[in-house]
Amino acid sequence: MNDNFLKACRGEKTSPVPVWFMRQAGRYLPEYQKVRGNHDFLTLCKTPELAAEVTIQPIDILGVDAAILFSDILIPLEAMGAGLSFEEGRGPVLEPPVRSRDDFRKLHSIDPVSDVPFVLETIRILRKELEGRVPLIGFSGAPFTLASYLIEGGTTKSFLNIKKMMYGAPDLFASIMDLITEVTISYLNAQIEAGAQAVQVFDTWAGILPRAEYSVHALPYVKRIMQALSDAGVPRIYFVYDGGHLMDLIKQAGSEVMGLDWRTDISMAVRHLGSDIVVQGNLDPCAMFLPEDRLREKIAAILEMGREARGHIFNLGHGVLPEIPPEKVKLAVDIAHELSS
Amino acid sequence: MNDNFLKACRGEKTSPVPVWFMRQAGRYLPEYQKVRGNHDFLTLCKTPELAAEVTIQPIDILGVDAAILFSDILIPLEAMGAGLSFEEGRGPVLEPPVRSRDDFRKLHSIDPVSDVPFVLETIRILRKELEGRVPLIGFSGAPFTLASYLIEGGTTKSFLNIKKMMYGAPDLFASIMDLITEVTISYLNAQIEAGAQAVQVFDTWAGILPRAEYSVHALPYVKRIMQALSDAGVPRIYFVYDGGHLMDLIKQAGSEVMGLDWRTDISMAVRHLGSDIVVQGNLDPCAMFLPEDRLREKIAAILEMGREARGHIFNLGHGVLPEIPPEKVKLAVDIAHELSS
Repeated sequence: MNDNFLKACRGEKTSPVPVWFMRQAGRYLPEYQKVRGNHDFLTLCKTPELAAEVTIQPIDILGVDAAILFSDILIPLEAMGAGLSFEEGRGPVLEPPVRSRDDFRKLHSIDPVSDVPFVLETIRILRKELEGRVPLIGFSGAPFTLASYLIEGGTTKSFLNIKKMMYGAPDLFASIMDLITEVTISYLNAQIEAGAQAVQVFDTWAGILPRAEYSVHALPYVKRIMQALSDAGVPRIYFVYDGGHLMDLIKQAGSEVMGLDWRTDISMAVRHLGSDIVVQGNLDPCAMFLPEDRLREKIAAILEMGREARGHIFNLGHGVLPEIPPEKVKLAVDIAHELSS
Repeated sequence: MNDNFLKACRGEKTSPVPVWFMRQAGRYLPEYQKVRGNHDFLTLCKTPELAAEVTIQPIDILGVDAAILFSDILIPLEAMGAGLSFEEGRGPVLEPPVRSRDDFRKLHSIDPVSDVPFVLETIRILRKELEGRVPLIGFSGAPFTLASYLIEGGTTKSFLNIKKMMYGAPDLFASIMDLITEVTISYLNAQIEAGAQAVQVFDTWAGILPRAEYSVHALPYVKRIMQALSDAGVPRIYFVYDGGHLMDLIKQAGSEVMGLDWRTDISMAVRHLGSDIVVQGNLDPCAMFLPEDRLREKIAAILEMGREARGHIFNLGHGVLPEIPPEKVKLAVDIAHELSS
């Protein structure tokens, strides 16, 4: 098996540096569009053969060093009793939103085996079909991020409702976070039992928090997840979007790998946190609009900074944009491999 | 005159610490709503008597230590030839967006005296009506932020078009930034000549940039503005929203005062930049949902961190939210004054 990804997670230097991209299975790929054209997004997530098919596409097409389960971070919320739908152009909708103790009482814990069997089946299929070519990454949302969808009822610019609850009804907020944390632990454990060889926890929205609030209202729950998985024997990646101001706190979460968005540079992370970190990232997805020679410079700069850390997994700082031509994405993978061999 | 604000800008310790809030004149105030009810937003900005009236409202109602010109950062873009409108619920619209060299050729420099006379007249009225009670702050957008509106055609989540140009057509991007910078310098100089006693440059969107890109595509233009104003004799404040990962670079812009959003805490700024900084900020606007005792704790914590810096102006980390009751905003001002006296 090409286990450069797992080695890098453990802090071993590899040649080349492993590469995978967030949303590497997705809309920018005509092969994905073809499958997606016949099925809505949730059906795709819930049909193991299809989810496995689109998960594998970028392995063949791009030559990346890890596969990541095709799914959505909101799947466990639906299993908990939240109403989930995806509307074209509007993104995910969670209705009714959870704003009161009564709303909260309608949510419940989950048993992944019976409540999200399709996720586990997708993982089992993938492990077979990947035949050990590259490791498979499972994932979940982080509690603050999931709570934000649940409480806001979807995406938001202002985060007014979640902050209102966090500041105004901290006990209710903590109850929601506790339940999500418990669900996330069993969800990730089930993924690992089904065959996930690493897990990434996506904290898309915690970066909107002040440090003091992140410390109290987000970090402890992620810590709990990381601790609960510490004996599972797979590397844990924690990715906080827009978390530049939280880096020292993010490190305390206790994951093996820290995912960085494109804003923060790896040198700065090393300068503030020391070189004993394993980082994943962090090319600006928009950098793929650069002409090849400039793209090469950007990738070279990131790889060079990556060498300052104990370990480095090359990735984007956020998901691949649908607007990028697939050949440019492949080019970025090839350049990263070539420059780090 | 209550010149605590100007003293604090110069790094003098004051008792109490001066307080003003971004968007202190705005929708949360029934008095503002009353004026706004009879006029659309742009008319309000362009009618000196009305703009002056709403500028002064929070001075009377909240007892803040500075007034800030009521206007919009996009006003000079309209004067440069961009089509500007505000649509309810959609925010500002700049149409057609500037995406090509031809689009750019339609823009032109401005003479503030003839092109935005209403802004200068508002300032003159304000200086008279304020009768020296508190200083008056003028402002502008920063070039990257203004360019983003111009190129995206309004607000955006992805910043795809500006990044596409920045990465793919850097010369065109630089031309746009050069022109905006030149306009901003003359715009701020005109405000100062008309009577503005300090200026704040708002960089709402530069925080989306990676450090390397900020250094090349945003910071140099802000530096140029700060340098051009260095002999004008008024303090310069530079506020970057979501700029936690850029703090050391932001400092290089050369403003007297660094405005911080709510994410970054002042202690962290002092730890990374040294205590010889003057900071403005940075209560989370949503913290006003807290009950009084907890709000007091948050304000106390910020004031305590502020004492680590050479100077501190108490502010929010972003604008006052329309959803906050005015009496809560007033309470925050009172608490900040009381705790720092």
